Amino acid sequence: MKPRVALALVHYPVVDRNRRVVTSAVTNLDLHDLARTARTYGAGRLFLVTPEESQQRLAERILRHWRVGFGAAYNPDRAEALRLVEVAADLESAIARWQDLCCSPIQPLLTGARVKNGLSLAAARRRLENRPALLVLGTGWGLAPALFERGWPALEPLQGSGDYNHLPVRAAAAIILDRLCGRDV
Amino acid sequence: MKPRVALALVHYPVVDRNRRVVTSAVTNLDLHDLARTARTYGAGRLFLVTPEESQQRLAERILRHWRVGFGAAYNPDRAEALRLVEVAADLESAIARWQDLCCSPIQPLLTGARVKNGLSLAAARRRLENRPALLVLGTGWGLAPALFERGWPALEPLQGSGDYNHLPVRAAAAIILDRLCGRDV
Repeated sequence: MKPRVALALVHYPVVDRNRRVVTSAVTNLDLHDLARTARTYGAGRLFLVTPEESQQRLAERILRHWRVGFGAAYNPDRAEALRLVEVAADLESAIARWQDLCCSPIQPLLTGARVKNGLSLAAARRRLENRPALLVLGTGWGLAPALFERGWPALEPLQGSGDYNHLPVRAAAAIILDRLCGRDV
Repeated sequence: MKPRVALALVHYPVVDRNRRVVTSAVTNLDLHDLARTARTYGAGRLFLVTPEESQQRLAERILRHWRVGFGAAYNPDRAEALRLVEVAADLESAIARWQDLCCSPIQPLLTGARVKNGLSLAAARRRLENRPALLVLGTGWGLAPALFERGWPALEPLQGSGDYNHLPVRAAAAIILDRLCGRDV
């Protein structure tokens, strides 16, 4: 079956704890966790979005180690997951690339804990049947406000049991993928 | 509302990649990710289970830093999440402690990617209404076989889109908590 969803992990533009727009650092752990989750749920790509060339080189170096270096023999499951990863300089490139891979228009789906009047996960799941999506996840304290002014739909925030909502991006991505692509068990 | 679920992150007995029973190392990241996810979904406790005293001391030191040290002022949300964490020397102590806190019998729920004929997540969610649960998560390559011979129920593995099932424990815990305690969005 053709993948209907891909992930973009955005390192710029995101906000920091004081709501300033910053470029966050690529972390080894996000890469591994998100790739394994993406692979488990049949996502087609995980785009690491960063404009910083040194960060792009770091990411490529980690990927090389696990895909073709020592790591590929040591842990083939990890290599398989990391083959999904591509580095992109900005979100527009990731969208264009995912569109090319899908041979069809795709829909970006923004995410954030402070989204108001967002699209429900059930509605987003139904929409996937008609059009592939790119799930856009922010690092740091979340995607910068400017991204929400582009006319792209945003998902309703995940609801915990109360007001506390500080899920790690690795946990939020897993829950959303399960809601969009998971099977009942 | 009283919490109905707690988590136990087990570092012994677990298996390594060669299915040998080992004690895994406590990691800073598991602690932070799982505590934030637990707090978001209203879990009552996160037990870090390790028999190694040096590892227990390490965990306590990390917790102290974020709960009352520099970290508590720097990041109060994180302090709030980490207040859920308790160190336990073994799974039995975690069960007994959670039972005490709930003032009622509790049910351990084992997890693993290779469980056969497990309890469905929907059934487990219904059971929570009658009895609080302790969700038992393995680090490394999963909980040791001996734990599955204790007569405790085990959850049906999460289903991705195919045969690949190598979710990070941080992702699996998030998805299971969402299925057991999450609200529809």
